[in-house]
Amino acid sequence: MKYPNNINKKYKHEINYKNRGMNLETIINEACKYYLDNDIAVIYKKPTPIGVVDVDYKNGAVIKKAYFKEPSTLDYNGLYNGKYIEFDAKECHNKTSFPLSNIHNHQISHIKNIINHGGIAFLIISMNNNYYLFKGENLIDFITNEKRKSIPFSIIDSIGYKLNYNYNIGLDYIKGINIAYKGVENYEKNTKNQIKKEER
Amino acid sequence: MKYPNNINKKYKHEINYKNRGMNLETIINEACKYYLDNDIAVIYKKPTPIGVVDVDYKNGAVIKKAYFKEPSTLDYNGLYNGKYIEFDAKECHNKTSFPLSNIHNHQISHIKNIINHGGIAFLIISMNNNYYLFKGENLIDFITNEKRKSIPFSIIDSIGYKLNYNYNIGLDYIKGINIAYKGVENYEKNTKNQIKKEER
Repeated sequence: MKYPNNINKKYKHEINYKNRGMNLETIINEACKYYLDNDIAVIYKKPTPIGVVDVDYKNGAVIKKAYFKEPSTLDYNGLYNGKYIEFDAKECHNKTSFPLSNIHNHQISHIKNIINHGGIAFLIISMNNNYYLFKGENLIDFITNEKRKSIPFSIIDSIGYKLNYNYNIGLDYIKGINIAYKGVENYEKNTKNQIKKEER
Repeated sequence: MKYPNNINKKYKHEINYKNRGMNLETIINEACKYYLDNDIAVIYKKPTPIGVVDVDYKNGAVIKKAYFKEPSTLDYNGLYNGKYIEFDAKECHNKTSFPLSNIHNHQISHIKNIINHGGIAFLIISMNNNYYLFKGENLIDFITNEKRKSIPFSIIDSIGYKLNYNYNIGLDYIKGINIAYKGVENYEKNTKNQIKKEER
């Protein structure tokens, strides 16, 4: 299916088949599946919000008309070692800085909310052939104190946490979480509450 | 917009306008909004998963063909007092028992996953003019030990936690969480990490 060049970036991740093998979202999704299959974390990509206008029930239920809605939260969320995790995947093609126009105001509010209520929120930024976990706290700090329209690459490279692509796992962001957030890795599962494997 | 009587229940919550005022989902959504506005919890309904097949870009981006996908998780998730929260809303019209066919196998696996990884998972069941928070642990117990196809109302009424509809809040399920899960209410926000209100 061909798409025009001016495809709105907002929809790009939903139906973009370019560079499918190493697309940021693809390698994050691989990792989510790996973590699920190996009982490491329970993290999913959220469905794209779509407003349904018209449904044809003649042959099953086919949606004939709908529109894309602006998401109020980030793209991925879930649970790792008892902690609430939420993050967004951002591909940055600019080599020198990360434009803050990439992030909507309501997403910034949402990141603040998550942090204030005891969760973990961050961005995964793909830039200059590296992948970085950029903590929500650092993002908020920068936006509050710097009043600039973009984050220089030097800052992302120095305070972001580099993530590695692993052929078996995908983009190993859980490893990044363990380094970026002290103590999260040392989680003692309450064995009394564990539902035995044979019951699953 | 008129819909045929045989509207698939799977799509009912997306476009059902019957009884809109006191529809279970409506009063849960009211509460989610109240908790967000009052900085109590950060919980959202997940978008319905939809697979997009065809988009018309001539006038903006209008989806011309898409289909509903089966959700792999529950309908609502988010964060309350540092805890991962996930739940599903189930309207039960049967007066004597709650059919387990209401819950898909992958949702049961998902509930087990959430519990095992340190999160809170439950159902909100609307039945016989009452609303109940039914803990995921109790659901899994019942399914594992009882090998029955439905949960008798007497069990839901006795081990479920009754939720109240509050005109200002909506269906106050956070109050139910505080009672059902000891210790969650006593959450000490790490004031060092709090992002000041004036920065929001």
